[in-house]
Amino acid sequence: MIELFELCSKDRDHIFSPFAWRVRLCLLHKGLGFKSHPVTFLEKDGFKASGSKTVPVLCDNGRWVSDSFDIACYLERTYPEKPVFGSAIAMGQARLVNQYVGAQIVGPIFPMIVGDIIKCFDDDCRDYFRTSREAFLGCSLEDAQKAAREKLSDFRAGLVAVRSSLKYQPFLSGDSAAWADYAVFAAFVWAHLTSPYALLETDDPINKWLAKMRDLFDGHAACFTPWYEKT
Amino acid sequence: MIELFELCSKDRDHIFSPFAWRVRLCLLHKGLGFKSHPVTFLEKDGFKASGSKTVPVLCDNGRWVSDSFDIACYLERTYPEKPVFGSAIAMGQARLVNQYVGAQIVGPIFPMIVGDIIKCFDDDCRDYFRTSREAFLGCSLEDAQKAAREKLSDFRAGLVAVRSSLKYQPFLSGDSAAWADYAVFAAFVWAHLTSPYALLETDDPINKWLAKMRDLFDGHAACFTPWYEKT
Repeated sequence: MIELFELCSKDRDHIFSPFAWRVRLCLLHKGLGFKSHPVTFLEKDGFKASGSKTVPVLCDNGRWVSDSFDIACYLERTYPEKPVFGSAIAMGQARLVNQYVGAQIVGPIFPMIVGDIIKCFDDDCRDYFRTSREAFLGCSLEDAQKAAREKLSDFRAGLVAVRSSLKYQPFLSGDSAAWADYAVFAAFVWAHLTSPYALLETDDPINKWLAKMRDLFDGHAACFTPWYEKT
Repeated sequence: MIELFELCSKDRDHIFSPFAWRVRLCLLHKGLGFKSHPVTFLEKDGFKASGSKTVPVLCDNGRWVSDSFDIACYLERTYPEKPVFGSAIAMGQARLVNQYVGAQIVGPIFPMIVGDIIKCFDDDCRDYFRTSREAFLGCSLEDAQKAAREKLSDFRAGLVAVRSSLKYQPFLSGDSAAWADYAVFAAFVWAHLTSPYALLETDDPINKWLAKMRDLFDGHAACFTPWYEKT
């Protein structure tokens, strides 16, 4: 049996982490059932055996794998049917996409919504989150958020590679969704589940792709509403 | 026989276009011999039958293909041995990488070296280049270059996805070089062949990868010297 330890907020059903969502979407893509173990930032005992201090962590019949990218690679090697990469070259190339998504999408989104994210936690997790994230950001969450939102147009402009790819093909992975789509989509789900902040303009063509992603896997990500539908 | 129409400067042996280099490297990767037809910006008759107004254009036994990305996909489908993608998903995902390289690497490099590129041409091509590129840039080549060079540190910072990927694996495509490597490397070859401007710091770890790329295919890109070797 596959078990997935994944971050939750004060509500155990509120699985909000972009890295958890990437793994979930890969599991769904491959048609692999899994048992979810939601954990807060402060609950680490359940996956101690993995050696990892952060989630997501996957346990596949006693085999532990951490890091969302390593988990995707593990799943691809162990369950090659219904591939999310399809070749060793694609897996290598996906590392570049992974780093791009981190630097250009997840990284810039984080400070823009950080003041909303913290509201999702109970008091203990709020303290942990504020202390660790303010050390990372080098300023208060509120100041970081204010500064980041002033650069919203830079973030939107920085999505040009995603936006222009979708002019050529329906998904970032070509004719159907695969790992690159899940990596990018998960970032928007995360933002959506933690903050009302409008990351995209309502007429951004990326919204149409987000709507298609939401409808995959019997609407597993039905929580997500593209920004053009929000207005 | 495969024929490749590719841009040259006033010296027919000076094949400098990043898009031509991507195609060359794919052909070498697949071990496909080809006949080069160097053309200047103003020589379009040789590939008129392709319907394309720009090079590179490939003619494979009478079948014409233009656009460096489409040529890579054509070669992969027609000559699947020694893959540069290896799967349909990789080819789809490569579109995202292609758009990323355009927006984040080729795009920012262009104005930084444009005042040097123009020096490579004869008078007729210089006039054509200045007129068309100044219209594109919205200012004189000299002003564009000055402004772009003031943002050199932004360009270097924008390479974080490339730099950090190479911490995990020797090539951008994983254990060995493939399309993503050629797409990025070709941009640096182009800059190197047209301008002395130092795009990278000498201690940038990207230089080590550039040195490995130069040594592929019996040093086909031996013209390229990483910046750490230049000082």
